[in-house]
Amino acid sequence: MSTTDERLTRQLDFIRELDGIKSIVRQNYLCDASRRENDAEHSWHIAVMIFLLQEYAEGQIDCAKAALMAMIHDVVEIDAGDTYAYDPQAAIDKAEREIKAADRIFGILPKDQEEYFRGLWEEFEEGKTNEAVFCRAMDVLQPVMLNSASCGKSWKEHTVRRSQVLPRIEAVRRFSDKLYGVVYDILNKAVEEGMILPD
Amino acid sequence: MSTTDERLTRQLDFIRELDGIKSIVRQNYLCDASRRENDAEHSWHIAVMIFLLQEYAEGQIDCAKAALMAMIHDVVEIDAGDTYAYDPQAAIDKAEREIKAADRIFGILPKDQEEYFRGLWEEFEEGKTNEAVFCRAMDVLQPVMLNSASCGKSWKEHTVRRSQVLPRIEAVRRFSDKLYGVVYDILNKAVEEGMILPD
Repeated sequence: MSTTDERLTRQLDFIRELDGIKSIVRQNYLCDASRRENDAEHSWHIAVMIFLLQEYAEGQIDCAKAALMAMIHDVVEIDAGDTYAYDPQAAIDKAEREIKAADRIFGILPKDQEEYFRGLWEEFEEGKTNEAVFCRAMDVLQPVMLNSASCGKSWKEHTVRRSQVLPRIEAVRRFSDKLYGVVYDILNKAVEEGMILPD
Repeated sequence: MSTTDERLTRQLDFIRELDGIKSIVRQNYLCDASRRENDAEHSWHIAVMIFLLQEYAEGQIDCAKAALMAMIHDVVEIDAGDTYAYDPQAAIDKAEREIKAADRIFGILPKDQEEYFRGLWEEFEEGKTNEAVFCRAMDVLQPVMLNSASCGKSWKEHTVRRSQVLPRIEAVRRFSDKLYGVVYDILNKAVEEGMILPD
């Protein structure tokens, strides 16, 4: 097999491998509460939000980079599974499970693309660059919007408290005060309406 | 309400509206044949493919633009529904249904974003620019890969013939001879293995 063919074969294998993310089910429900959302749907949604809400960024944003980061930030969950934001037990070995998953899944790609895609995932995890700050904000804002629209179904199932959500929405404040105002108002309304427990 | 607030309200309404695309079910199955794919998953998959396979483009590609086009190319189906590629009857009033849907759905956005998002959808439909040619190729390659991986489940259900698939994969040839080779080989193998009827 020529080098070119091997390259293309690896790319096509990765595309098929990615299909697995559609079966990783998250805790939050769709807006209509009909069923839980999966990682592919969530990643699609926040990638569109990157384009839609870029005007609220304070620094320069490379939208192509941020969108791809959004689209692949949960790929490691194909092996490592989804870790619920409010489950401290599951968070313990999360990093270890995800690094092992990254080795295998991004390792399917040709070397240069493995480095680029894995680099984007690591950048997201570190959360320091403008694009990572933006993605992490959308990764929090989107499920809060869906939870609120579905009458807090997932929050209620997990008896989530205001004090658990407050530290998480800091990720939105790091991106934009204006969008933090949005998510803060949603949270308070959810507490008032009994979707989230007060403290 | 200030202009700024109205702008943000429209953007947030659009984000919630987009959730509906996760309930638009396509004909093709996931690779593991466990269930049919939906439009959000499909759009996510081809948007990642845009970044992954850009090296096969002959002309210049604006990846951010192509990825957003890929992500929103099926948004009109929230109202208009999915039209199966091999159903000539459903194709008759497709354009009319989709334009009405575009008016309503993109109309939720602030004017400048309505024009940009709708413009991208129209550009995809026309299929002339480099980005539209790329998106349309991925829009065909991705379900062929999934159909083949799921042992042709959807092709068999619809008793699809080789002569029905051949004109569709021309969209891949318009983008790249190399990727056309890939999709052509998948098609022939699917015929050999009885997933698609020969003519």
